Amino acid sequence: MVRTPLIAAPWAGPLWLKPESLQPIGAFKLRGAYHAVASLPADVQKNGVVAHSSGNHAQALAYAARDYGIPCVIVMPDAALPAKIAATRALGAEVVLVGATERLTEAAAIAADRGMSLIPPFDHPDVIAGQGTVGLEILDDLAEVACVLVPVGGGGLASGVAAAVKALRPDVTVVGVEPELAGDAAESFAAGELRQWPLEKTYRTIADGLRTNLSERTFAHLRTYVDEMLTVSEKQIEDAMGRIAVGSRLVAEPSGAVSVAGYLAHREVLPPGPAVAVISGGNVDPSVLARVL
Amino acid sequence: MVRTPLIAAPWAGPLWLKPESLQPIGAFKLRGAYHAVASLPADVQKNGVVAHSSGNHAQALAYAARDYGIPCVIVMPDAALPAKIAATRALGAEVVLVGATERLTEAAAIAADRGMSLIPPFDHPDVIAGQGTVGLEILDDLAEVACVLVPVGGGGLASGVAAAVKALRPDVTVVGVEPELAGDAAESFAAGELRQWPLEKTYRTIADGLRTNLSERTFAHLRTYVDEMLTVSEKQIEDAMGRIAVGSRLVAEPSGAVSVAGYLAHREVLPPGPAVAVISGGNVDPSVLARVL
Repeated sequence: MVRTPLIAAPWAGPLWLKPESLQPIGAFKLRGAYHAVASLPADVQKNGVVAHSSGNHAQALAYAARDYGIPCVIVMPDAALPAKIAATRALGAEVVLVGATERLTEAAAIAADRGMSLIPPFDHPDVIAGQGTVGLEILDDLAEVACVLVPVGGGGLASGVAAAVKALRPDVTVVGVEPELAGDAAESFAAGELRQWPLEKTYRTIADGLRTNLSERTFAHLRTYVDEMLTVSEKQIEDAMGRIAVGSRLVAEPSGAVSVAGYLAHREVLPPGPAVAVISGGNVDPSVLARVL
Repeated sequence: MVRTPLIAAPWAGPLWLKPESLQPIGAFKLRGAYHAVASLPADVQKNGVVAHSSGNHAQALAYAARDYGIPCVIVMPDAALPAKIAATRALGAEVVLVGATERLTEAAAIAADRGMSLIPPFDHPDVIAGQGTVGLEILDDLAEVACVLVPVGGGGLASGVAAAVKALRPDVTVVGVEPELAGDAAESFAAGELRQWPLEKTYRTIADGLRTNLSERTFAHLRTYVDEMLTVSEKQIEDAMGRIAVGSRLVAEPSGAVSVAGYLAHREVLPPGPAVAVISGGNVDPSVLARVL
């Protein structure tokens, strides 16, 4: 893992960026996958790991398995982008392509048949704990932090960061941010119960990493440890991407920029003092990046 | 200063990037300016510092002076970009605008009148030593490094990095890279004597930070500590900028991308094994960045 530094964003205020975009696969996902693999008992770990994912989690798990020298199978929908399949194979994983509806059953079957451990992208305590190291590093590097903003998709990153920050520094405000167009977590938070949005609704946002719903586990974390949920518009996300690139020289993907967008759009509800926005990833289509500059 | 991490560039080979683009002012210049201010005797330091610069050195020196709570005067040509003047003033410096030909005499006059120390952008041992910390960090973070590539403009960064690397690890190859269109250092290196190129010639390159000629001091450093000088085309610079943004999620300015361009274009003359390319800065016109994506 890269020990990502805090990067100043004076153009936005007393704001610092935590660029998880600089991790080897371009996203925070490596932290959780790595910690989940590291936490397996040795006799179980040697049998390898399996996951169903067509996104960053696939590459994160493949990367961790390669480092540990253990087998890794990634189940992907047969409609997955060839580039994502190739990138996962390049990290040494076996990629199994199935119809989109068969992904879960196929991954479970492989786990059972081969004695492999199924590592989900966010709904797992070891994965959440791994993401929490982002929070530990923020507290180490900026003791005077008043507020931490985290993007919310499935909620693994926000759960881990919020749990870590609140355990050590209950006085620090932790804010989750998501797109208005995938505002299931904000709605759940306000309603006090888990609300699932259909994928055809969340797929409207450009922030493709945040279209996922929370699980019961991550929702419970957010309710316990997160102070506030904010939402941002598509325009605010794109504006933030451009300002991050020009002002702090970092490439953020739309999902990664929502935390900064939330800071810029909602400063009046945030505590005064230094804030840290987690840039969750930087895997963006070049044409999208070019458009927002 | 940010302790910049090494960022993997597996898309290029066994290459790591040292992103000085992530320093507060977006360039390595802060290291040298800060070290020069820190090295002044206390009774001299309190009188403040002065420089003539319309570039990153102006902001670097203003930033360092502000941290030390001492006065700072920056002499700029009256044709300097308003954004650069504003950015320097925002860091607390007094900006004095003069005709382009009067910059040196005006800065010297201010130094004499006010008892301020003149801190040049690269032709100064303390400035060079400060830039050298980039080399120390590379050796700390990647002991198995075989080759370090550094952009060459005035030669301050390359002088410092090469001196630091060779002092500790004479087995590591240090390579300077510059644009073909501002190839004065490569020509000087080959000729064994300092060759100055007229500004109307070096101004053809997009790499605006590398249009400067070497000084006798930096040329002496390069001859002693640098193993090889390479040049790259304008197209190679732009290609490298795009690949750095997409592959390693970093915004590099053209001057910052020449080290990566040199690696991609000249791998056959470099030693096998891990290489580090220093990304000297990330202050790029958004329209230029959009074009290369």
